[in-house]
Amino acid sequence: MNTFPHRTEQPSALLTDLYQFTMLDAYYRLGMEQTAIFEFFVRRLPERRSFLIAAGLEQVLDYLENVRFTAEELDWLGSTGRVSDTTIERLRNFRFTGRAFAVPEGTVFFAHEPILRVEAPLPEAQLIESRIVNLLHYQTLVASKAARCRLAAPKAELVEFGMRRAHGAEAALLGSRASYIGGLDATATLEASHRYGIPMAGTMAHSFVQAHELESHAFLNFARMHPDNVVLLIDTYDLTRAAHRVVDLAHRLRGDGIRIKGVRIDSGDLAQAATNVRNILDHGDCRDVRILVSGALDEYSIEALQAARAPIDVFCLGTHLTVSEDAPGLDCAYKLQQYAGRPVRKLSPWKETWAGPRQVYRQYDPSGYIAMDILAGEDEVIDGRALLREVMTDGHRLCPCPSLKSVREYCAEQLCHLPPALRGLEHVLQAPVKITHKQRELAAAVAQRMH
Amino acid sequence: MNTFPHRTEQPSALLTDLYQFTMLDAYYRLGMEQTAIFEFFVRRLPERRSFLIAAGLEQVLDYLENVRFTAEELDWLGSTGRVSDTTIERLRNFRFTGRAFAVPEGTVFFAHEPILRVEAPLPEAQLIESRIVNLLHYQTLVASKAARCRLAAPKAELVEFGMRRAHGAEAALLGSRASYIGGLDATATLEASHRYGIPMAGTMAHSFVQAHELESHAFLNFARMHPDNVVLLIDTYDLTRAAHRVVDLAHRLRGDGIRIKGVRIDSGDLAQAATNVRNILDHGDCRDVRILVSGALDEYSIEALQAARAPIDVFCLGTHLTVSEDAPGLDCAYKLQQYAGRPVRKLSPWKETWAGPRQVYRQYDPSGYIAMDILAGEDEVIDGRALLREVMTDGHRLCPCPSLKSVREYCAEQLCHLPPALRGLEHVLQAPVKITHKQRELAAAVAQRMH
Repeated sequence: MNTFPHRTEQPSALLTDLYQFTMLDAYYRLGMEQTAIFEFFVRRLPERRSFLIAAGLEQVLDYLENVRFTAEELDWLGSTGRVSDTTIERLRNFRFTGRAFAVPEGTVFFAHEPILRVEAPLPEAQLIESRIVNLLHYQTLVASKAARCRLAAPKAELVEFGMRRAHGAEAALLGSRASYIGGLDATATLEASHRYGIPMAGTMAHSFVQAHELESHAFLNFARMHPDNVVLLIDTYDLTRAAHRVVDLAHRLRGDGIRIKGVRIDSGDLAQAATNVRNILDHGDCRDVRILVSGALDEYSIEALQAARAPIDVFCLGTHLTVSEDAPGLDCAYKLQQYAGRPVRKLSPWKETWAGPRQVYRQYDPSGYIAMDILAGEDEVIDGRALLREVMTDGHRLCPCPSLKSVREYCAEQLCHLPPALRGLEHVLQAPVKITHKQRELAAAVAQRMH
Repeated sequence: MNTFPHRTEQPSALLTDLYQFTMLDAYYRLGMEQTAIFEFFVRRLPERRSFLIAAGLEQVLDYLENVRFTAEELDWLGSTGRVSDTTIERLRNFRFTGRAFAVPEGTVFFAHEPILRVEAPLPEAQLIESRIVNLLHYQTLVASKAARCRLAAPKAELVEFGMRRAHGAEAALLGSRASYIGGLDATATLEASHRYGIPMAGTMAHSFVQAHELESHAFLNFARMHPDNVVLLIDTYDLTRAAHRVVDLAHRLRGDGIRIKGVRIDSGDLAQAATNVRNILDHGDCRDVRILVSGALDEYSIEALQAARAPIDVFCLGTHLTVSEDAPGLDCAYKLQQYAGRPVRKLSPWKETWAGPRQVYRQYDPSGYIAMDILAGEDEVIDGRALLREVMTDGHRLCPCPSLKSVREYCAEQLCHLPPALRGLEHVLQAPVKITHKQRELAAAVAQRMH
């Protein structure tokens, strides 16, 4: 169990789309309250993704357990005239009472595979759609990007620096969380460390150097003030000169028992700059000073820097990770699969869905790699490991969520099961997913019936 | 003044980078508390942007007025061992006491132009960096994208549908706000309407149709339940059949005084689909039924649909707008320009900055278009309208922020002043910005001095 306070502040339950209330109101008044089954899945993977990492379930369960309306919110909602008074009255005691099945956070998954299934009275299952998508979409996006960064540099230290250009406060926090799940080692965002227990890391800004009249004074002052965490930013003016200053300072500080842990380079040609700085440090007997780099890094630049054998110890990842720069959105959906025992599907061009509640069965080859996922009806008996497990019943989670650290370890393990062909950053292969014959038959039968 | 409750929930003041506290701690202990001047600007515009729209100032001012630490936060911060006890004690009474100068929200601006200048004791001005960037970056990104959508369809109705794939809760709300500033007409996000007074809009989901055994029953039930807002989603199964059903239903409902306001198409070739549906509606004497479209729309697809003369009345914009799909991050910075009266700059390759506090003077041609922006030292006397105005002193805002509606009107006016050549979606021209001779001299002189 996680020992850190989660303190997920719940945003207003009005953080949803207007149409959720319009439909809920109609369902209440029409007496359409039988069990609906919805599933969350990704329709198509982004162009440069061969797999995704599921993340965000813990926040979804927090939301489902706690979604409530305040009197003020309901008064306002009533005042819009979009929802009937009887519905407003019923919402005063609203709580989610359904069941949920999900794949564990950190699980590798592919297009069309459900990672969450919700079974609840139709109005409830509908109302929660927008926030569920909002939570699963973003963290899955970032965890998947983080996993790619980890695959690009299996042994390097990776630090997340993304808060300032994350899309708002919650993205900053959940982005740190998802990055950690995907394989980063630490975050610069203090509140993410406070809330989720993610190890923290940080250096200094250019302004610290600039606020001093001399760069050498800035370095000395920083080392004196923070002798246990001396990481100096060396590219404010002239990188070579700064590297020599670090060597001088390192020798001077050794007498005081202070060690310079690292230097950070944030601009220019990072491979060349790191090589230059490494040489200066090594010739100056500072082999133990590590080199950190930052500045618009992503899995592609990390791979290129590794291929160039740039002597870099730590990659600091910011914007490109936190906004998932090359794929800032996923084509994901939360779709009705069944209502009142009747399987349904959509036939919209390019957006057709499968019908009925489903399960994913994962099969491994003798080396432990994922051989095939079988996408089947929930009631089919199929070889393999069933990925979706029941996590909530009657609106209460069945067991505490695993600690974030263990989710991260599980994700690392998942990446080990990923076939090598799917690990590349560019060459996207067909995902190893098969649909059962029974699923295809059901889809065809439902299509016949739908009009 | 805005009549809606803003209720901007302040996230924890620990929502910042670790290094802000590391530096603040050093500044306190070194007695480096003279006035620092920082500026926020965008270094380079994204590849497909010719201008940006400033947004987020109101949230920045809320933050600066309210940033405080709780005892629990400070106890935790102290427990990390990264900050001295004396600093923790000082933070118990922390408040921002500085001045701020800014361009109004909704202002058009270009690369290197400051849109916010902060003048405060160095530790304060430093600490607030991360959240200020977080707030200005995201809203500027989205307002700029929204303005492009507005320019692509000057007369169409544009509705924001982005909540579910926004990066978290705050992005959903601030994304709606920024979209409205940039020129959208309404939002589907109820809480954005509740909090900011943005007009609300909404239709129905495919699940509503699917939950009924017959599409025609779903349409009839929706119309009966919400007779004042009948907008039907017609692409769940077969678009043509659904359009004919709408015609039948429209005639049937006329007797009851119920009007079908619109139909939404969410898939397929939207130009073709809209033309097909328009024909059916017109031939069925339903000329007043409007056509809404949705599905991965952005300024480029809007422009293409307009060029194809697709009979579309309302464009519903989701993910691509809210995550600014083609440019989900801006290369922006909050940089030290002066400390203790001494102008400073950075010389890092590709990231050089100008020195000292600055002002932007905007000059117009006789037609009212922006002719040239002059980027000058704050103390230079230059022709033109000074864009930065004082908005905060001693940590208090000087006057209430304008209503969101008036910000939106101001932004629309700003777009009218944009030279036609800068309005295209693809052809990016050199921005009309000049740096004064005096600024260049200062930069050169400071570069000489910096080491």
